[in-house]
Amino acid sequence: MSVINLDHISYKPMLPEVKAAMIDAIDKDYFNPASQHKSGEMAAEILQSCREDVARFLNAANPKEIVFTSGGTESVNHAIKGVALANAKKGKHIVISNIEHNAVIRSVKRLKSMGYKVTSIEVDESGRVNPQDVANAITDETILVSIMHSNNETGTILPIEEIAKITRERKVLFHTDAVDSVGVVPIDVQALGVDLLSFAANSFHGPPGVGGLYVRRGTRIFPILDGGVQEHNKRAGTENLIGIIGMGAAAKVALEKLPTWYEHCLRIQNKLVADLPKVIDEYIINTNPEHSLPNMLSVSVRYIEGESVMLMLDDDDIAVSTRSACATGSLRASHVLISIGLSHADAQGTLVLSFGKDTTEEDIDQFMSSLKNVVTTLRDISPLYRKRAAS
Amino acid sequence: MSVINLDHISYKPMLPEVKAAMIDAIDKDYFNPASQHKSGEMAAEILQSCREDVARFLNAANPKEIVFTSGGTESVNHAIKGVALANAKKGKHIVISNIEHNAVIRSVKRLKSMGYKVTSIEVDESGRVNPQDVANAITDETILVSIMHSNNETGTILPIEEIAKITRERKVLFHTDAVDSVGVVPIDVQALGVDLLSFAANSFHGPPGVGGLYVRRGTRIFPILDGGVQEHNKRAGTENLIGIIGMGAAAKVALEKLPTWYEHCLRIQNKLVADLPKVIDEYIINTNPEHSLPNMLSVSVRYIEGESVMLMLDDDDIAVSTRSACATGSLRASHVLISIGLSHADAQGTLVLSFGKDTTEEDIDQFMSSLKNVVTTLRDISPLYRKRAAS
Repeated sequence: MSVINLDHISYKPMLPEVKAAMIDAIDKDYFNPASQHKSGEMAAEILQSCREDVARFLNAANPKEIVFTSGGTESVNHAIKGVALANAKKGKHIVISNIEHNAVIRSVKRLKSMGYKVTSIEVDESGRVNPQDVANAITDETILVSIMHSNNETGTILPIEEIAKITRERKVLFHTDAVDSVGVVPIDVQALGVDLLSFAANSFHGPPGVGGLYVRRGTRIFPILDGGVQEHNKRAGTENLIGIIGMGAAAKVALEKLPTWYEHCLRIQNKLVADLPKVIDEYIINTNPEHSLPNMLSVSVRYIEGESVMLMLDDDDIAVSTRSACATGSLRASHVLISIGLSHADAQGTLVLSFGKDTTEEDIDQFMSSLKNVVTTLRDISPLYRKRAAS
Repeated sequence: MSVINLDHISYKPMLPEVKAAMIDAIDKDYFNPASQHKSGEMAAEILQSCREDVARFLNAANPKEIVFTSGGTESVNHAIKGVALANAKKGKHIVISNIEHNAVIRSVKRLKSMGYKVTSIEVDESGRVNPQDVANAITDETILVSIMHSNNETGTILPIEEIAKITRERKVLFHTDAVDSVGVVPIDVQALGVDLLSFAANSFHGPPGVGGLYVRRGTRIFPILDGGVQEHNKRAGTENLIGIIGMGAAAKVALEKLPTWYEHCLRIQNKLVADLPKVIDEYIINTNPEHSLPNMLSVSVRYIEGESVMLMLDDDDIAVSTRSACATGSLRASHVLISIGLSHADAQGTLVLSFGKDTTEEDIDQFMSSLKNVVTTLRDISPLYRKRAAS
């Protein structure tokens, strides 16, 4: 049974090169890179070469600016809490947007309970932050601005370069959660002008549970995992070398293939937008048409529950999501969709369609045919839909 | 070229079963366990079965008591900081020993800078904490005691059960860093009576960079990685499923094979103790003869530098360490060895020999022959040794 994966935002299949590199690493069973004998040194060299591959992919000025972590969530926690604790003497004010991932929202919530103050900037209806609002929010107490590069539920890309100009001028550190952008759109940390950038290997077809944090040289930050001297004293703990080797392999391939992946995703996205009106009506596209990732489309199908659509599509072997996988289990409407002005009912009817380099036009055709049946079936039994049809 | 690994404390070779399970996982390329469709559910079931395997290995009452982490360091940070932050209203005092791993020492140091108070209990010359000293250190403000199960530089096992009786009576939470014990000696979290226990997969021949924290049900603790709802809301972030599958496989094998491994290591340890006087003189064995892990021996070879011995043995393709791999790069004498009464000079002459189920008697013979040459060579050029010989 083969499943059509229209839930790439939750999981992207690993590249053959990634699988091969990891299997080779398992076979070779490298030593602890922190050990000082030859076996340790060999492992340390491999770790360094992965660091160089990732640094090149993100155009970091120096491989030392890449800190390997256990994934996007750790990177975000490290950036926010690490900067907050290290710069507490300067001030205790942090600026975020109101559409951040829970890793950001809950990290600043934790800091709030420790006396920090947080300003959450509202996005406009297109889902973007106005850089001027960031400028206005910064005070003498502000030590960090954290605004995501792209939103994981709508795919909207935010004006990071413009915000970075402001934070540099105001001498405030700037972190961007780029977990859903890295591997999808070109990311150049120097061109962006950010001080910290979080990423996860699976976003560029690497393994799950491994990622990194770009930390511009000279950025004042504490570790959040204290202990040994690994990662240039920025992140203690024996490395997940097998995962890091997978991430390094993914970075090498992504650096070369990203433009092709991008074009392919854009074609699929355009096809989705073009085909949807042929199979359903009364829906809202939440993805910003101008500034968005090419690999996703957020669609609110009115009068029905996204959850029911997802489950029925699942019966047809089509995987989609209704929101961030990290938030499943939560029954509340998405804070992101409410923030861009959706009603609770429409937010509950939302499907996040996310795809990748291997998604075919046939996959989309099959999805459309399935979606048509599912929506018809669900609307037939929807009191909301009948009420609306009767009015 | 095959290297004799007498540095198992830094890295234990992965079991064939672990390698096979991980390669299978890479091949199958499971989805994100947090996703709600069939592909996600399949991954969630596998995650759950790994949790059950690890819970069974440690005899946890419920698999939910096992929180998967990125390794021993994260587990220790989580236990200490998570308990400290969650129980701050009750008090801000923590009790540790003075021979803890840097993950503990630096975690409490971080908390100190946030207003917490720490009492560090001195160990006696045998390297053990006197439980009565713990009882005396506990005040009304104490919220956590963190004492390691075994020391990573000497192998000495500490009286955890006795300390747990005291902490339970005094209603203080008790964490033990059991990273070097799990997989070496039987660990039963219920019999030990601890509330939290840190472990790392590589200690039982699983992959590096993955581990876990046992959290007894009802223990008040905050996550240190905030974000999604993974790990029953105790640890956010997409799981390193490939690593966790490796850890689950390791736990299954270790549960069965541990007694055999134990006996084998004990034979090697006895052989080391018996053979050493045949090849060198003037050395100190720092490993407690009565209460110690079977898989290591700490030996201080007087009048020479352990670092030099390590490097010369490395030339003979024998890997040993002089101290915790996490502390390499640090030039200071080991705080652990100083704590058990060694002079700085003797501490600097220390070798940590650690071995495992695959170490053979021939490996030890080869090590002994190499050690004899190395020590003779180094003492020949040692001013300290000549001075002592002349006196």
